[in-house]
Amino acid sequence: MLLDARDLDQRAAYRLMIGSIVPRAIAWVSTLSADGTVNLAPFSFFTGITSSPPSLVFSAIRRSGAHKDTRANVEATGEFVVNVVGEGVAEAMNQTSEELPPDVDELAHAGLTPLSSARVRPPRVAESPIQMECRLDRLVEVGQGPGAATLVIGEILAWHIRDDLYDPERARIRVDRLQAVGRLAGDWYTRTRDQFELTRPNPTYQGR
Amino acid sequence: MLLDARDLDQRAAYRLMIGSIVPRAIAWVSTLSADGTVNLAPFSFFTGITSSPPSLVFSAIRRSGAHKDTRANVEATGEFVVNVVGEGVAEAMNQTSEELPPDVDELAHAGLTPLSSARVRPPRVAESPIQMECRLDRLVEVGQGPGAATLVIGEILAWHIRDDLYDPERARIRVDRLQAVGRLAGDWYTRTRDQFELTRPNPTYQGR
Repeated sequence: MLLDARDLDQRAAYRLMIGSIVPRAIAWVSTLSADGTVNLAPFSFFTGITSSPPSLVFSAIRRSGAHKDTRANVEATGEFVVNVVGEGVAEAMNQTSEELPPDVDELAHAGLTPLSSARVRPPRVAESPIQMECRLDRLVEVGQGPGAATLVIGEILAWHIRDDLYDPERARIRVDRLQAVGRLAGDWYTRTRDQFELTRPNPTYQGR
Repeated sequence: MLLDARDLDQRAAYRLMIGSIVPRAIAWVSTLSADGTVNLAPFSFFTGITSSPPSLVFSAIRRSGAHKDTRANVEATGEFVVNVVGEGVAEAMNQTSEELPPDVDELAHAGLTPLSSARVRPPRVAESPIQMECRLDRLVEVGQGPGAATLVIGEILAWHIRDDLYDPERARIRVDRLQAVGRLAGDWYTRTRDQFELTRPNPTYQGR
């Protein structure tokens, strides 16, 4: 069946997007406001860009026209941490999707443990299996109206990796042990334990 | 453990990125060259941006400094189709990751069936369960050197959805039936059948 975007309102189009672009990695982003309050929120319009330098992007969609705290904090401070969501923190991540006033420490509110970062000021989430410290590269505005979005492009300055998830011999992350959680549509998520391998016909240099 | 990006070369950083940003949705992108040759290639640095208007983004990383055919075609024609990768087309998708000369029809080469699109010129892949027709919004250059990338930002003009995957009552995609495939690190992929639900503490308007 064909659905033309001209016949869909914003909510209908959003439903189709979150059902078509799956599974999505989750950026659980910790930031500091200008006055030092910790903010923590999940974003599933999130992906990598390049490793030259290591760069990632997530989309912060306005809510009823207002910028999210995360976007305001990143703009004010230029720094954020992306915490990876493993199965063990999925419930806590979900709690932090609640909209709370900007002066509430959402990391503490969710019963999580802050850890100091090495190269940026926002704290990391101790319970997260991998944390990436990032510096803002730039903000890119996309779309119009109350649902317009900001692409937050960041450079990864440092990785913190739980020891058992790193394979020093091959200098890679043990994704078979990570138990990362992926976002689907609505309230649904997927585990990543059901893995399979496909050998590329013509390997490139990247990551090999 | 802490890994500082200043101590990592481009390949090492890439390995960490593809192991940390998981699972990733796959954009299997069909384009036409200026002279009409079909190109088809998978990109897993891919996500949504906003539904106002419906917009998505994927990152095309240069290979040894050269632009990929997809990026050149999108720039030349302003159009592309994102085909969703279900389990049934995972092997075919993997075949199209091979680098072939720009004059080879990669859709035919992989034994796939082209279908005309409704609003753009590049064909859709019939075997793909969902196809999104897109018009180029803009290209954003990120990074430096031979591994620099281009963010390809597109507006979704139309969805084609396999009938059994659409729930007309709730106007949504049946992700429980989609069997989408997610990208992990190296040659590894995840199925998305192992799903679970988390009820949001404070639902927003979006997609609900």
